[in-house]
Amino acid sequence: MNATQKQSAKDKAEALVAQMTPEEICFQLRYDSKAVERLGIPEYNYWNEALHGVARAGTATSFPQAIALAAMFDAELLFNVADAISTEGRAKYNAASNRGDRDIYKGLTFWSPNINIFRDPRWGRGHETYGEDPYLTAKLGVAFVNGMQGDGDTLKTAACAKHYAVHSGPESLRHEFNAVVNKKDLWETYLPAFEALVTEAEVEAVMGAYNATLGEPCCASNLLLGEILRGKWEFDGHVVSDCWAIADFHNHHKVTNTPRESAALALNAGCDLNCGNTYLHLLTALQDGLITEDALRRAAVRVLTTRFRLGILGGEGSEYDAIPYEANDSAENHALEQKAALESMVLLKNEKLPPTPLKEGGKTQATLKEGGKTQSSRSEGDKTQATLFVGGQGGSFLPLNKSKLKNIAVIGPNADSRVPLKGNYYGTSSEYITVLDGIRRVAPDVRVHYSEGCHLYRSASEFLTGRDNRLAEAIAAADASEVVVLVLGLDETIEGEEGFSGDDSGSFDVGGNEFDQRAYFESDNNTQGGDKKDLNLPKPQRELLDAILKTGKPVVLVLMAGSSLDLRVADAGCKAILNAWYPGGRGGLAVAKLLFGEASPCGKLPVTFYNSTDDLPDFLDYAMANRTYRYFKGEVLYPFGYGLTYGDVTVQRAERRGSGYISAAVSNIGIAATKDVVQVYYKADSPFAPPNPVLCGFAKTELAPGEARTVEIALNKNAFTVVNDEGDRVAAPSGTLFVGIGQPDARTAKLTGKKAIEIEVK
Amino acid sequence: MNATQKQSAKDKAEALVAQMTPEEICFQLRYDSKAVERLGIPEYNYWNEALHGVARAGTATSFPQAIALAAMFDAELLFNVADAISTEGRAKYNAASNRGDRDIYKGLTFWSPNINIFRDPRWGRGHETYGEDPYLTAKLGVAFVNGMQGDGDTLKTAACAKHYAVHSGPESLRHEFNAVVNKKDLWETYLPAFEALVTEAEVEAVMGAYNATLGEPCCASNLLLGEILRGKWEFDGHVVSDCWAIADFHNHHKVTNTPRESAALALNAGCDLNCGNTYLHLLTALQDGLITEDALRRAAVRVLTTRFRLGILGGEGSEYDAIPYEANDSAENHALEQKAALESMVLLKNEKLPPTPLKEGGKTQATLKEGGKTQSSRSEGDKTQATLFVGGQGGSFLPLNKSKLKNIAVIGPNADSRVPLKGNYYGTSSEYITVLDGIRRVAPDVRVHYSEGCHLYRSASEFLTGRDNRLAEAIAAADASEVVVLVLGLDETIEGEEGFSGDDSGSFDVGGNEFDQRAYFESDNNTQGGDKKDLNLPKPQRELLDAILKTGKPVVLVLMAGSSLDLRVADAGCKAILNAWYPGGRGGLAVAKLLFGEASPCGKLPVTFYNSTDDLPDFLDYAMANRTYRYFKGEVLYPFGYGLTYGDVTVQRAERRGSGYISAAVSNIGIAATKDVVQVYYKADSPFAPPNPVLCGFAKTELAPGEARTVEIALNKNAFTVVNDEGDRVAAPSGTLFVGIGQPDARTAKLTGKKAIEIEVK
Repeated sequence: MNATQKQSAKDKAEALVAQMTPEEICFQLRYDSKAVERLGIPEYNYWNEALHGVARAGTATSFPQAIALAAMFDAELLFNVADAISTEGRAKYNAASNRGDRDIYKGLTFWSPNINIFRDPRWGRGHETYGEDPYLTAKLGVAFVNGMQGDGDTLKTAACAKHYAVHSGPESLRHEFNAVVNKKDLWETYLPAFEALVTEAEVEAVMGAYNATLGEPCCASNLLLGEILRGKWEFDGHVVSDCWAIADFHNHHKVTNTPRESAALALNAGCDLNCGNTYLHLLTALQDGLITEDALRRAAVRVLTTRFRLGILGGEGSEYDAIPYEANDSAENHALEQKAALESMVLLKNEKLPPTPLKEGGKTQATLKEGGKTQSSRSEGDKTQATLFVGGQGGSFLPLNKSKLKNIAVIGPNADSRVPLKGNYYGTSSEYITVLDGIRRVAPDVRVHYSEGCHLYRSASEFLTGRDNRLAEAIAAADASEVVVLVLGLDETIEGEEGFSGDDSGSFDVGGNEFDQRAYFESDNNTQGGDKKDLNLPKPQRELLDAILKTGKPVVLVLMAGSSLDLRVADAGCKAILNAWYPGGRGGLAVAKLLFGEASPCGKLPVTFYNSTDDLPDFLDYAMANRTYRYFKGEVLYPFGYGLTYGDVTVQRAERRGSGYISAAVSNIGIAATKDVVQVYYKADSPFAPPNPVLCGFAKTELAPGEARTVEIALNKNAFTVVNDEGDRVAAPSGTLFVGIGQPDARTAKLTGKKAIEIEVK
Repeated sequence: MNATQKQSAKDKAEALVAQMTPEEICFQLRYDSKAVERLGIPEYNYWNEALHGVARAGTATSFPQAIALAAMFDAELLFNVADAISTEGRAKYNAASNRGDRDIYKGLTFWSPNINIFRDPRWGRGHETYGEDPYLTAKLGVAFVNGMQGDGDTLKTAACAKHYAVHSGPESLRHEFNAVVNKKDLWETYLPAFEALVTEAEVEAVMGAYNATLGEPCCASNLLLGEILRGKWEFDGHVVSDCWAIADFHNHHKVTNTPRESAALALNAGCDLNCGNTYLHLLTALQDGLITEDALRRAAVRVLTTRFRLGILGGEGSEYDAIPYEANDSAENHALEQKAALESMVLLKNEKLPPTPLKEGGKTQATLKEGGKTQSSRSEGDKTQATLFVGGQGGSFLPLNKSKLKNIAVIGPNADSRVPLKGNYYGTSSEYITVLDGIRRVAPDVRVHYSEGCHLYRSASEFLTGRDNRLAEAIAAADASEVVVLVLGLDETIEGEEGFSGDDSGSFDVGGNEFDQRAYFESDNNTQGGDKKDLNLPKPQRELLDAILKTGKPVVLVLMAGSSLDLRVADAGCKAILNAWYPGGRGGLAVAKLLFGEASPCGKLPVTFYNSTDDLPDFLDYAMANRTYRYFKGEVLYPFGYGLTYGDVTVQRAERRGSGYISAAVSNIGIAATKDVVQVYYKADSPFAPPNPVLCGFAKTELAPGEARTVEIALNKNAFTVVNDEGDRVAAPSGTLFVGIGQPDARTAKLTGKKAIEIEVK
């Protein structure tokens, strides 16, 4: 919507609020706002979620988790995903509100996206983010908000940038933690994405974080809310507290003594809406003179403006009121979900096989060029494609050839579980396709030997006894098969938000008798309050990996997790590793399509895969020194921006086009079509430049085998700047641009064999 | 195996035990028996389960739950199922033991079947049984044991008849309860199945129940173990205690004061093997003179005899050692699983539609006869079959016609849950096909609107808030669809064994804040300790049913539960009701095939569906008066033996053939092929005859439309007997035989329109 329309909504809100009593206003400032019948204001619940699909409100298309969406490195595709989510949100809102249901998770104010920086791989909620890079996060966050909010005469839905700001664990301390951050890191790392969402995407809401930053609880931060958000960035929407965060002021931060003081502190600092119930005390705070009626009215205008902008107040309606229920969970959106899943997965390893002569003899790359599509064929007679996906003939272990494979072992706690498909903050998928399901669908004639292998993190598989495990079964399955697909990782029961991860403890009483359940509960899940203690897989999975590698069968590891893990053992022993993240309801089908070469992987890591937390600063340290690819000085296992394909795309030439563009000549010299992501990094000649080159542009392109094309890459408008120690962004026009498939460091080149093109900038 | 082979195994066991010290023997009498290396006895764990597939040991074919297997009314098919389970048990045993894994659930002694009589519909474990009729239970139990144990030179696996005897709840009292039973009920109702399994099937093991019967804990019952089992029936195998049941002697039954006394009491009564650890105290009991060394040796001989009979002791091996891992979870067994699921489901209602002229005009039943197979066709041009499955053209609402249906709502907490597929005591299916999955597979071009509708028993759907529900969504889904498939019922979290059903309680602390979770936990699951308090569906499901019926859309109810429920509201309001039980891993596919007419339902109820528990005696009362179809005097909703088909099979004539057979002329005058079950009931002219006719024979037959055939039905050898008040079985040669499709009572005839053929017997 345009500025006039936005202002008009605000005017209407002001007129409405002018008619309201302070008591009526107080009930408008809670997420579960009450109806004011005399003014025609219906009941409305502001709390809704849409991190990667409409969440917690029943059936909805379940897109891959946010970290996976980031791995697509594709703002346009993310925009389309957000647009689809928004359509479903409207369809569901229309269906529910037309039937009188205005309960929680049924509204149009979605508390997404989470644009915090994934500063440390231990953070349990990191998978809700777009990764560790400020520019990638900003670019993707803007696309998401634009997709959600639409460009109509009303907001399609209202998005919310969270958690503002400097918030990334530990989960177990979030209610009392004070993040200490220097000005350079604040402005260089923690704020740019919020700034972009507010100033470029005009996000309608901002959520304050639980923690304090620089001594002020974020939901009452004069610096964050007053000086920066409302002042410098001229934010025009409403601010909402994280849920029960205002109660943390007196309960945990101890900056106030009573709920009344907490409510006043938040309101006065510019927090308009309370997720929680502390704003119950606003009326008495008003009576006590802790707040002014003006402050109350100001907040009410802001929250009601959002409802006018959505066209759900005042009776004028919205162009989106006509979206029918059928638009939810549609076949079109399922196709988009599948596309997103396919493009989000990152191929971390694909072992080169010793060269073998092509069976037909004399066929060269040139003759293979004619096959432009990545589609495997079950027909042995199809010369152009069928031979591409034989392990060994394509030169690497993957993709598997289903027409040659007789049997396959599918092993692991995440192979047939629905939980890792969902990530966290999920809706109900109308269909779950696990990796096991997907493999059966894509390769129906291959005999599958399935074993759970082990519990995700418990030492025993069966609840009743606390003893036995599935190792012998897993080994038998491997022994009976030509290839093992091992599906390991985490899920939200051990990686996620505080209070929701699986720390069940102790003993269990069965019929008052002496059943000993200790072994069952004796878990080694490496987690605490949703955060990881280290980068290890849980112990039973490490034992399983060791046992399967020991069989000598070729192993493909499919990793389902939301963060980086120590994959050194797998990297050394497995033929291939595919990082599938938490890939959405039908994500197992995408895994199978990639394993069997129906498409080429093309996702890139939005986070660094470190070797170990030993290489990292303390988790509580918010300084960026030696964190993320920009500042990390050691060796890593897989770098930010890294990801293999079944093609072989290389940047051959690159040059600057005007001030804001790079033009790159790329070609696919491989034998399979693929998408790939051309990435541009900049290393400024400045004492304030981070030690390593910084991402400042990326573009995805699709190339048939043998195809060459020129790709235009738009650069970050702040590309040629640095942030000094005072937090000021200053020009840094001279330095080096690196244009390639991945980061320009030695490690990337070692993994991919590809060096970036360097462009000197003066 | 033959008597000589069995005796030879016993001789070997005797020779082996003769070499053992008392201490060594004591460790052989626990389920987790230790190795005796000097005698070449490996470690062995006796505890394994195979109620409806190898359970708790990882991947195995997951057949329908026992109550569903009973509803097949097909001893031969059940034999095949048990044979397949036994093959998988051997395949898994071979794989595990060859890899040194001899842990729990990895052995060949399976503690199945459960042949207790499902005396009262409230019993939570009733779904583990073959229903309420002693003859049906005996016949099916014998078939199951024969399938499990095989007819080789060694036992294929060892089965176990449990829980001996007079055991059927309440679960919450099982450790201290004393079942009081009169002699007539004992011998007429509670013992016949055990007698058949011991004397006809030569079941290798018998498990004593937790409760006491007539004042003696079952695992130390001189009456049950001594006088009847070993005395009258000459049982030749071993007796095992239910798990930790011997500890109940001092902990709960209070018939002993110490574990030592309990161990002695059990051993002296003839309980050979202890599931639990009370037999740790046998050695001190021996020292104290509470038991004799002879008693110890006798028990050891019995348990080791079983291992010799299995060919897993003494090095001679078994013919089944060659069963490869590939025999587990095989395509062949999946096909059998699907067949069992299809034949187990019971069509309880199928509303007749007003007659409409056939579209082609002039087509009559006679011309339709040519189509002999029940297979729907997507081709509109297929005149013989495509028209059969149009709701209305076949004369009834079901089957649905997928070529005419544009959209369908699939609603309910059991529609896409894996839990109700599994029942209890389950293995890991290598594939789960929910009802929602199945419908999508069978009718891929029909748009599906899915809603969970409500939680299985909680009042809110989302854990985090405790408020919202899915009613509006469910109604929107129904409104958007032509037909609603509503999938309700129970699962093992609220219907099952004591201590394992979902009684989570209270409040939940989220981050130390004021989240109120009461509404979420405010459940109305109508259950207590696994038993049902009444026959109601949980409250949220009743509300969902009401709301969906109110939309006016035609509703097909699919019920997934292990016991009878009060379906009066559904019976009045739904167009059709299919009782799918807990149908096994791929059971949802079978549901969909039946709904869309790819096969005809043919299952029959092995339990009475009462209107309400108001009509029943107290749950604690073990007298049979006014219980089960044989003794119940009131009106019921759906009687024992009842179940509709898409055909129309009628018994036209019947006559006795010799003493033990009935010959019945049956024909299918319907327009769809179907299987159906001809049932024979006998009402003796005797004061000791139960008030209603008693099942004494059944035979399943398959008939194409218009086909007629003669069916031979073997009668129970005890058919023409009754049990007097002293518990003696006496001849009752005069009376009336009823031969029909279902029971001969008025209610059945009202439901099916079919009266049984009466044969006077003198």
